[in-house]
Amino acid sequence: MTGSRLGPGPEFDRIRSIAAALGPLAPNIGDDCAVIPDGTGTLVASTDTSVEGVHFRLDWISLEEAGYRAAASAISDLAAAGARVVGILAAVSAPAGASPEELASWMRGVGAVLESTGGVVLGGDLTAGERWSATITVLGRADRVMRRSGAHAGDGVWVTGKLGGARAALHAWTAGRTPDPAARESFARPVPRIAAGMWLMQRGATAMMDLSDGLAGDAGHLAAASEVGIEIDLERVPVHPSVGALDRGLFAARGGEDYELLACLPSSFAESDAAGVSLTRIGSVVAGQGVRLLRGGKTIPLPSSYNHFA
Amino acid sequence: MTGSRLGPGPEFDRIRSIAAALGPLAPNIGDDCAVIPDGTGTLVASTDTSVEGVHFRLDWISLEEAGYRAAASAISDLAAAGARVVGILAAVSAPAGASPEELASWMRGVGAVLESTGGVVLGGDLTAGERWSATITVLGRADRVMRRSGAHAGDGVWVTGKLGGARAALHAWTAGRTPDPAARESFARPVPRIAAGMWLMQRGATAMMDLSDGLAGDAGHLAAASEVGIEIDLERVPVHPSVGALDRGLFAARGGEDYELLACLPSSFAESDAAGVSLTRIGSVVAGQGVRLLRGGKTIPLPSSYNHFA
Repeated sequence: MTGSRLGPGPEFDRIRSIAAALGPLAPNIGDDCAVIPDGTGTLVASTDTSVEGVHFRLDWISLEEAGYRAAASAISDLAAAGARVVGILAAVSAPAGASPEELASWMRGVGAVLESTGGVVLGGDLTAGERWSATITVLGRADRVMRRSGAHAGDGVWVTGKLGGARAALHAWTAGRTPDPAARESFARPVPRIAAGMWLMQRGATAMMDLSDGLAGDAGHLAAASEVGIEIDLERVPVHPSVGALDRGLFAARGGEDYELLACLPSSFAESDAAGVSLTRIGSVVAGQGVRLLRGGKTIPLPSSYNHFA
Repeated sequence: MTGSRLGPGPEFDRIRSIAAALGPLAPNIGDDCAVIPDGTGTLVASTDTSVEGVHFRLDWISLEEAGYRAAASAISDLAAAGARVVGILAAVSAPAGASPEELASWMRGVGAVLESTGGVVLGGDLTAGERWSATITVLGRADRVMRRSGAHAGDGVWVTGKLGGARAALHAWTAGRTPDPAARESFARPVPRIAAGMWLMQRGATAMMDLSDGLAGDAGHLAAASEVGIEIDLERVPVHPSVGALDRGLFAARGGEDYELLACLPSSFAESDAAGVSLTRIGSVVAGQGVRLLRGGKTIPLPSSYNHFA
């Protein structure tokens, strides 16, 4: 399958520059519909919007990083489903004055994610807007689709990687400071945990989701979907090294946009590595409802979840 | 498959109001990924963005009509592929002050399209923006995927329905007039030609696309993709009754956003109805390249295509 020839005109010049930036990652640009390759497993899909000024600022990160981050946050939903990546459709809205080079830069960021996760750009749309925004729709296939529902009382509660890095970068920027390079990297280039998600699914995970709103809030979503309670020991939460000394566990639990995985696994499960990513047990599934954060055996008040509408 | 239970919070109140507006058209709201139902045929996908102030204005049409129009223009790409509708993912950006009722109204418009075309809302995303916009990703299945490429010299060039209605409404609004109700309907509630697209595919169409930029420009895209020339007789173009007396064929040929189908069919094809929609032969595929518009046997200059970036 090869791409259609494109007609003349400035819109097609922009599409051509995107196709050139992506190379073999965009095999089929130019027709009304993309063909989804056949494959085994259940097909899953998700869609995710990133808006300049809401989800990122271009005085914080580059256009290429904004494209990377938009694609990574969308693909992270496939990791949460235990799926592998088939491809994405990228609807990009760029300011009217955006150059083909700027669009190509944005799409190079998207391409960098796909190079690490697999998958191709299946299609897209390009519109003019007041600022940069993108809606990325992801398609994947899962041998068993992981959901937020399915956790049982007695399961262990686990997270991949370390939490709070993206929030540490955000705190630095909003305070007018330059973030620690490792914190900045957590915000600008989160790594979708595709391999870890498939590994956890294969090891018998009962429920899973990715951490986009923050551990405390997201655990509440998983608890609601599974109709269980979740207890999290803040002293066990793996904290990103860029997070300062005070209230490290709570800071990390409130931090959104880490795109690590939250997984429930049978109580017998005990490993410390998921496909190359560190794995930490942070608590337990219990009968009941809601989330309890514990420190030194005492319950501490729940922070409110990050809410773009608040 | 049933929907996940949703956690508390205002974002989920909004999602709940959307789910209530859609009823059985949204069977599975609340998880990270939607599961795409199995089925026969090749899976195809497309994504399409509609932005307030660029693609529509809320002093022209209602929020429900804006939702309808966004979904219809996206689903029209499936009609062009000769596909049936599996479902859509709707990423909606609403102003921060938008009420759950306004979001529900928008989604009722989306639901009205799906009631006529088939398919369900598979998933979505909700963000805050400065104005209303939506990216709709559509998934469909085709027994044979129609493309813009594939037309041969000697084929007839056909269109469904009547052209120019949406443009007549736009002209009235921008001149400060109230459009003719039938023209307004063409703009606010275009009908995706799903049944006609499948019918034309089954009757041996060689190339197909939907008319979103206008016949003259879109025929140029099809000609470029198929590496052929296209001659269109303006006196044969079926003109919407709301279009005024002067230069009717040219007005209709320049009019975008009719979402009728442009199809190439073998020269022997001769029917006047495609699954309940009128069908008109307007020209021929010829060797060469580009589009020639003819009136009374004479070539007339090509109008420039509608371009959101211009």
